[in-house]
Amino acid sequence: MTSPSPALAEGGFPVVGIVGGGQLARMCQPPAVNLALTLSVLAESPTASAALVVPHSPVGEHTDLAAVRALARDCDVVTFDHEHVPQEVLLALQEEGVALHPSPQALVFAQDKLAMRRRLTELGLPCPRWAQARDAADVEAFAAQVGWPLVAKAPRGGYDGKGVLVCRSLADLEPWLAGVGEGGLADGILLEEAVDFSRELSIMVGRSPSGQAAAWPVVETVQEGGINTEVLAPAPSLDPDLAAALTEGALRIAGELGVTGVMAVEAFEVRDPGTGAPAYLVNELAMRPHNSGHWSIDGAVTSQFEQHLRAVLDLPLGDPSTRAPWTASANVLGGDYPELYATYKHLMARDPGLKIHLYGKGVRPGRKLGHVTVTGGREGDLGSLEELRERTRHAADYLQGVVTE
Amino acid sequence: MTSPSPALAEGGFPVVGIVGGGQLARMCQPPAVNLALTLSVLAESPTASAALVVPHSPVGEHTDLAAVRALARDCDVVTFDHEHVPQEVLLALQEEGVALHPSPQALVFAQDKLAMRRRLTELGLPCPRWAQARDAADVEAFAAQVGWPLVAKAPRGGYDGKGVLVCRSLADLEPWLAGVGEGGLADGILLEEAVDFSRELSIMVGRSPSGQAAAWPVVETVQEGGINTEVLAPAPSLDPDLAAALTEGALRIAGELGVTGVMAVEAFEVRDPGTGAPAYLVNELAMRPHNSGHWSIDGAVTSQFEQHLRAVLDLPLGDPSTRAPWTASANVLGGDYPELYATYKHLMARDPGLKIHLYGKGVRPGRKLGHVTVTGGREGDLGSLEELRERTRHAADYLQGVVTE
Repeated sequence: MTSPSPALAEGGFPVVGIVGGGQLARMCQPPAVNLALTLSVLAESPTASAALVVPHSPVGEHTDLAAVRALARDCDVVTFDHEHVPQEVLLALQEEGVALHPSPQALVFAQDKLAMRRRLTELGLPCPRWAQARDAADVEAFAAQVGWPLVAKAPRGGYDGKGVLVCRSLADLEPWLAGVGEGGLADGILLEEAVDFSRELSIMVGRSPSGQAAAWPVVETVQEGGINTEVLAPAPSLDPDLAAALTEGALRIAGELGVTGVMAVEAFEVRDPGTGAPAYLVNELAMRPHNSGHWSIDGAVTSQFEQHLRAVLDLPLGDPSTRAPWTASANVLGGDYPELYATYKHLMARDPGLKIHLYGKGVRPGRKLGHVTVTGGREGDLGSLEELRERTRHAADYLQGVVTE
Repeated sequence: MTSPSPALAEGGFPVVGIVGGGQLARMCQPPAVNLALTLSVLAESPTASAALVVPHSPVGEHTDLAAVRALARDCDVVTFDHEHVPQEVLLALQEEGVALHPSPQALVFAQDKLAMRRRLTELGLPCPRWAQARDAADVEAFAAQVGWPLVAKAPRGGYDGKGVLVCRSLADLEPWLAGVGEGGLADGILLEEAVDFSRELSIMVGRSPSGQAAAWPVVETVQEGGINTEVLAPAPSLDPDLAAALTEGALRIAGELGVTGVMAVEAFEVRDPGTGAPAYLVNELAMRPHNSGHWSIDGAVTSQFEQHLRAVLDLPLGDPSTRAPWTASANVLGGDYPELYATYKHLMARDPGLKIHLYGKGVRPGRKLGHVTVTGGREGDLGSLEELRERTRHAADYLQGVVTE
């Protein structure tokens, strides 16, 4: 652990370095302000989302060892806004004694989907059937086993549905097969069966280096075009045994993989082929604050951003309980309206209880610009959740220019 | 209204200037981050509480017209961390077209307690009996009317109990009478009857330049040595008619005085001398976020800091409803423990639901370093409020070194 620079922090309070200046780093700033923790963000540019709100935000690339090393010099621990820091950079810093959370040994399972599938399968955790494919013969063999369509994934570098292809025949995969051995396909293609799921779930857990762990309730995530558009917390009408199994599974993954900080486990809700009972299959892991946890800012006693800071500093974890029976959250994606400020004024007038979170980014179609959250409702009353959903969906649609009143 | 500097804000979002870099400016940063509003803080030093967390924090004095003018040049509106900006500075800027919220014409009633008493009395709002005293004869005349002891107040420049003297005889007031005509006593001394109150209450309201206003519930404030130590929201066992009267009174004050931003009305709970019914007398006004509203960060849908930003920008106001049956908050004052970080680690382990707010200040005895808040309990159940109070009092005592386990 390096010594904090007196220029950054005073009074024995630590400095948390974050590699990457996106909205996840930005949303760490409010809890850091509350807890008197100092952030230092390695940002892509001086106008990166987090750099706009964190005083100490040196500009540099996450792939540049010297830049990450310079960040680490001023910090007590270093964590990440995204999962794209190369292993060679991480391992070099670890060798030099920098406290990285999560460690490169844990993070690799969020960076490399083949490594993740292999490890979770070893641990006996439920996954879709999968295979590693380097050529057409591998693909044909797996298809013979699970049938078409297949889901192909680039093991490295994918996000928000990029690097994922649903393919109905070998022909669909030809361009990918041609790329095997390079970049995200260096070790081949990850093939998975197309899961027949009823909905997508996500669970987030926080885990500290001391091994303390805490889980938020399982949430339902609604996706459109591979991008998460809505989160409902807790997941409505979720079978309690399935909730317990998924929570247990996520805590086990965090422990076995040595995760530090917060982690999201995205899962498919399915039926057990034997018993017909509700069951889950792990879809993806993310070792950082995650879109499916944004609801916790307004809806939980401890938000995922506060918990991430507490966890990476090995502070005792906060209470992940909900603060209301229901929380609904919707993502705001870039649309046709370039003037977000004018639209949000209107929304504030329409719905005084709406919590608006914007990331300070310029509008580009499809870009994640923010999210909106509403909490409230009545315990077990799905109609009251539906009212919250209508409010967040309207707000997101309005900010995106999909509806105009 | 000046044009925002493109260096500070992008995409049509406004910049809010705050004169003063204390904890009130600091606590505006979390909601500013959420709402993509940019702050610019005129700070006393580069390590002022707010300057530690707001990227654009030029250093300068609030009494320096040139420094405040330079701040205003980059901002859409200017507001205040404290009430000490001289009227001549405010009036000069107003003349130059700077949008000040609150305006100097409103702020004077929070700066000058004599002006406040005069105006509230004109409006028929309930105040303790009071008089303006320039010499011993004035004091004797007022004492003959209301009896000893009297409360003497410096009309200008007092805060946290400073500038207030309970006097039992004319002798106690001699040093003050000698100072009449200078500084805070330029217009004499404000004398007030010593009110026989059962407890102190506070109500906060937000009001926008358009005239939209919203009130939080009335809270109880517990004071020790003239400093607020605890806030209970809502005020337990408060007579509903008194709550309504105080809320109405505060909204009327905000409207009549033309307040923009948030305002606290501190009041004494008394008995109506005629009917014996619960009643109130206005004690003090503050036209800015206030210690008695810190509970709203965790306990209300819209915090006083978010509301202040919305109000000064003339944005529609947020919902001030509570998020839990009870919220208890306690101030953390500087004590014997210089190492806050070590103590707060312990508290996090002891109480995962505790919300800790520290202001990034060095420990000095008696200095306001932070506050702690807990929300929860059961509607109308005073025992459940008492449990929350025990948690916040213990946490504050522990951080202050009063208790050691």
